[in-house]
Amino acid sequence: MAGGGAAAAASALSSPWRALLQRALDANAHLRHSTYFQLATVGAGGRPANRTVVFRSFQEHSDKIQINTDARSNKIAEIRNCPFGEICWYFTDSWEQFRISGSIDAIDGSSADPAKLQNREKAWFASSVRSRLQYLGPQPGVPIIDEEQVKDVHLDPSAVPAEAFCLLVLDPEKVDYLNLKNNQRLIFTRSQEEDGSIDWMAEKVTP
Amino acid sequence: MAGGGAAAAASALSSPWRALLQRALDANAHLRHSTYFQLATVGAGGRPANRTVVFRSFQEHSDKIQINTDARSNKIAEIRNCPFGEICWYFTDSWEQFRISGSIDAIDGSSADPAKLQNREKAWFASSVRSRLQYLGPQPGVPIIDEEQVKDVHLDPSAVPAEAFCLLVLDPEKVDYLNLKNNQRLIFTRSQEEDGSIDWMAEKVTP
Repeated sequence: MAGGGAAAAASALSSPWRALLQRALDANAHLRHSTYFQLATVGAGGRPANRTVVFRSFQEHSDKIQINTDARSNKIAEIRNCPFGEICWYFTDSWEQFRISGSIDAIDGSSADPAKLQNREKAWFASSVRSRLQYLGPQPGVPIIDEEQVKDVHLDPSAVPAEAFCLLVLDPEKVDYLNLKNNQRLIFTRSQEEDGSIDWMAEKVTP
Repeated sequence: MAGGGAAAAASALSSPWRALLQRALDANAHLRHSTYFQLATVGAGGRPANRTVVFRSFQEHSDKIQINTDARSNKIAEIRNCPFGEICWYFTDSWEQFRISGSIDAIDGSSADPAKLQNREKAWFASSVRSRLQYLGPQPGVPIIDEEQVKDVHLDPSAVPAEAFCLLVLDPEKVDYLNLKNNQRLIFTRSQEEDGSIDWMAEKVTP
C-alpha cells in the first residue's frame, strides 16, 4: 500500500503483543492513569515489593519498556540484587490486563556503557522540567524532621541528568494478556532462534 | 456520645491507616475498579509475580485483607513457597497509593483449622453465584485445544465451597501511604508489645 512503508516496517519490528498494548493505550488515552502500572520486584529478605510507576516509552527500535526512577529509592538496590520484574498494567476502561515479565537494567550515571548513558540522557530531557526537579529534592522515604527544611529548588532546563536520575529498562520475556470484556487470555512467550533473532509464541489459554 | 458505642469500639480496634484507606474507598466508590489492586508475590525461580485481584473484605474484628482466588492458579504454589505479599492499591480518582505488605495465608478445603474453614465458607457465600461459577470451570492458564469444549455449568446456590475455591488472607505488617495530591507520605509499621497486643507506629517521610 502506497505510503504504508514506515508503518509496515514498524509492525515488522514489533512483537505480536505490542499491537494489543497499543490498542489498549489508545482506548484508555483519555484517562490520566492509563500510563500508570504496578512494578513488582523482589525486595529485602526475598519478599515481594510493589509500587506504581509511570510508563515513559518503549526504547527506540525495541520492545523494552522505560521507567524513570530515583536512584536513591529502595527499588534500585532491590533490582541490583534480583534484576527481574513483573509489570501489572490494568486498563480501567477497556478491562484489559497485561502482565509483562522480564529482566530489568537500572541505568544511573555510573554506567560504563555510552549507549546506555545516552538513553538515560534522552529520557531525562524527554521528561518535563517539573518532573526532573524531584531528583534534586531530598532522598525519598526518609523521615521528615523539620517541615521548614523544604526549600525552593531551581533547575537549568539544559542541565545534564541529576545524579539521582535512574532509567529502568525492562526487557519483556513473557506477556500474559487478559481481556475481561470478552474473557480471553493469551500468553506470549519469547524465544531466541539459533541465528540469534527473537521470536514470540502466542498461546490461547483459559482465563 | 449516645449511640456511638459500636463505632467507637470499631475505631478502637482499627489501625491508624484503616481510616485513610476507608476514606479512599469512600472517595473512589463510584469507580468499579476502586476495589481492584495488584498483588505481588515471589514466583518461580525467585522472580516477582504480579496480578490484579479484588478486595473482598477485611476479616471480622481484624485488619486482615481477604481475596478470593482459584486454588489451581500459579499463585497458590508460589504463596506456599514464599508466604508473603505486597499489595499496591492505587486510587485513580483521589491519587492515593497504599502499599500493604505482610504474610499471606492460603486457605483451601484441606485446612485443618475449623475457624479458617468457616471463614472460607463465609467468603464463598458472600460472593455472587456468578463469581462462584468460575471455580467450577476449567483450570486457569491451560491451553485451549478445542473451543467447543466450553459447556454450561450449573451451581446450587446453597452448595458448599467448590474444591478450587481458595481464600487468601493477607495480614498487614507495613503500610506505605502516598498522597499525590498533597504530596504527603506516611509509613505505618506494626510492632508487637510485650503483652502480645499489636501497636502501629506512624512516620511522616519524604515522598
